[in-house]
Amino acid sequence: MIAVKNAIQIIESTIRSQKVHSKKVVKVLNQVLAEDIVSPIDMPPFKQSSMDGYAIIHSEEGQYQITGEVQAGASKDLTLKQGEAVRIFTGARVPESADTVVMQEHTSVEKNVLIVEEVPKKGSNVRPQGEQIKKGEVALQKGTLLKQAAIGFLAGLGIEEVKVFNLPKVSILITGNELQPPGKKLKKGQVYESNSITLKLALKNLGINKVTVEHVKDKLGATTKVIKKHLRQADVVLISGGISVGDHDFVKEALERNKVEELFYKVNQKPGKPLWFGKKDEKVVFALPGNPASSLTCFYVYVLPALKRMMGHRDMHLPRKTATASEDIRNKHRKDLFLKGIVNDGKAKVLIGQASSMLRSFAICNALLMIPADQEVVKQGEAFQYIQLP
Amino acid sequence: MIAVKNAIQIIESTIRSQKVHSKKVVKVLNQVLAEDIVSPIDMPPFKQSSMDGYAIIHSEEGQYQITGEVQAGASKDLTLKQGEAVRIFTGARVPESADTVVMQEHTSVEKNVLIVEEVPKKGSNVRPQGEQIKKGEVALQKGTLLKQAAIGFLAGLGIEEVKVFNLPKVSILITGNELQPPGKKLKKGQVYESNSITLKLALKNLGINKVTVEHVKDKLGATTKVIKKHLRQADVVLISGGISVGDHDFVKEALERNKVEELFYKVNQKPGKPLWFGKKDEKVVFALPGNPASSLTCFYVYVLPALKRMMGHRDMHLPRKTATASEDIRNKHRKDLFLKGIVNDGKAKVLIGQASSMLRSFAICNALLMIPADQEVVKQGEAFQYIQLP
Repeated sequence: MIAVKNAIQIIESTIRSQKVHSKKVVKVLNQVLAEDIVSPIDMPPFKQSSMDGYAIIHSEEGQYQITGEVQAGASKDLTLKQGEAVRIFTGARVPESADTVVMQEHTSVEKNVLIVEEVPKKGSNVRPQGEQIKKGEVALQKGTLLKQAAIGFLAGLGIEEVKVFNLPKVSILITGNELQPPGKKLKKGQVYESNSITLKLALKNLGINKVTVEHVKDKLGATTKVIKKHLRQADVVLISGGISVGDHDFVKEALERNKVEELFYKVNQKPGKPLWFGKKDEKVVFALPGNPASSLTCFYVYVLPALKRMMGHRDMHLPRKTATASEDIRNKHRKDLFLKGIVNDGKAKVLIGQASSMLRSFAICNALLMIPADQEVVKQGEAFQYIQLP
Repeated sequence: MIAVKNAIQIIESTIRSQKVHSKKVVKVLNQVLAEDIVSPIDMPPFKQSSMDGYAIIHSEEGQYQITGEVQAGASKDLTLKQGEAVRIFTGARVPESADTVVMQEHTSVEKNVLIVEEVPKKGSNVRPQGEQIKKGEVALQKGTLLKQAAIGFLAGLGIEEVKVFNLPKVSILITGNELQPPGKKLKKGQVYESNSITLKLALKNLGINKVTVEHVKDKLGATTKVIKKHLRQADVVLISGGISVGDHDFVKEALERNKVEELFYKVNQKPGKPLWFGKKDEKVVFALPGNPASSLTCFYVYVLPALKRMMGHRDMHLPRKTATASEDIRNKHRKDLFLKGIVNDGKAKVLIGQASSMLRSFAICNALLMIPADQEVVKQGEAFQYIQLP
């Protein structure tokens, strides 16, 4: 049995980022950029008006002869002389010979003569070509998380494709003969299987949609065969259940038969002790405890960081924050506890129903409160760390 | 022109939650529950072992005769007498006549006789029927945000469908004759259109995938007709650009011709001043400024909260948090500022490139720093509010 922090270290030192792949920018939301992006154009690509108004050659004069108009999108370049003005609109190309745009609100027009009530400073309301970025400059650096604004920025530079780290393909293998799919009538002794749904949706929230779920009979031969198949097709194999000490738990032996190297087994934590982690070549396997709350806790603490590292994220772990206990929290177990809790305004409350079989508290919590193995009690008002859940 | 807080109030008092719809639980990730869910079963549905071990009738005896075995999933009910033990596994049904499970690790077996090294307390390692939740109890309340754990919890109760608030259908209408799709070669005077991409991806991050994008010519007739069509098919119409004072800005008049009631126009903020908000029956329209940073700022401050309210979220606004300024932040504009910034460990830094045409800072920021209109400077070290971006 190893400590939580050692288990995390092993994962950090084992996992590598995925291969890199070119994708359309509209398809890479929440993925991580795998190359520096250089701007292919000046932005704006021409001297651009930032207002509706009139382009002039700057002077202290109050009157100008209106000689033309440039609409947004028009490519023509009108030539101005001193004392002339050109009607112009937001986003339109400012004539090369003009240097200033007077806001429409500060003008009036009488018989084609523009009267300027307030002369702005030279250069006002004109965006110089390349003001935001120049052709050849780095627009976004490798490692940038591509949210909507980043993708919009790239699209605005005319960029259609970028290299990103591949999303891992994940297989979820469900063991446990007692498990029935929701919708079936339960016989005595059976329960509904929910881990595949919880894990699949947790993966979806990470942007991972290539997920295969397979249910496995609690037999050594069947388990060995199914693991072999998914080691071929997936980057990450998550196995739910079958990793304890019972006579019908075949996962550990099936992993050995598939020559998956064990990197750790059993972590000094509650819930989630019987966690197994290993690798075979580039593939990694997490054998998660079958109890729903144990499974999801291990997902947040170990699997999610591994996946984020594979996806190229700089911050692989969920945020660790500090809260104060709103009442004493006891730890009789000499294990690291991950308690379902609610943190509000920096105050943390433990929810009722912490058993590893129970998802009820997980369904409404926003934090996993972390009580270290060597701390018997967190006193009311005492500060401690928690994981902020997504 | 109205104040930011008044604009927000108008939106809060205008927007209603969407109609309610039954959907498969596997399809409602990140939606909001529109009904109280009552558990259809006891959970666990039977007296269940939480360990691999031996079921006994509790006594202080150290030896028991092993008389049978119950695997997980088996429905049979073995009858025990005092002094007998039944081999049992995690998740399996504990015989009605047994009351305690001894962990396998605390036992040894000799010729079918179980030797218990450490007798646990009566009731140990047995989950009573209905321990987590009883049939008829409320499992989740109306208004619960359905993340993976909540959906897993419902699936574990055998629930297949739930009522959720409908996701709004959104139309994005793009005005601006100067705009070209990425991939085309730009003529002088043209720029790439990115607002439709940014907005569509921002909607996707909210779980809204039913989004229609249409580009509109800067003509009154065309704009009027396209708005009419989208008022029929969408719940929310977002219009990008064409709402300023220029001669080619037809959006405001086209909205009037469609009898969309104006609820506010122009907000005392930078960027994003020329924001228009209105409604027609149940439909709402946001006419967003065309500049990319203005558009996205208005999305986060006004549109996203409106959509979340429609989707039934209790917390409609993005989180407002407090940070301290890492250097003086000036506000010369007598407007509420929303500055792209980075907040790290409670310290806020303003990014370079705040012009409303620029997405470069938006692409890498994690916060919108809020500087009130009546505050000329936030001093270094002074606390102020920011919006935490998703």
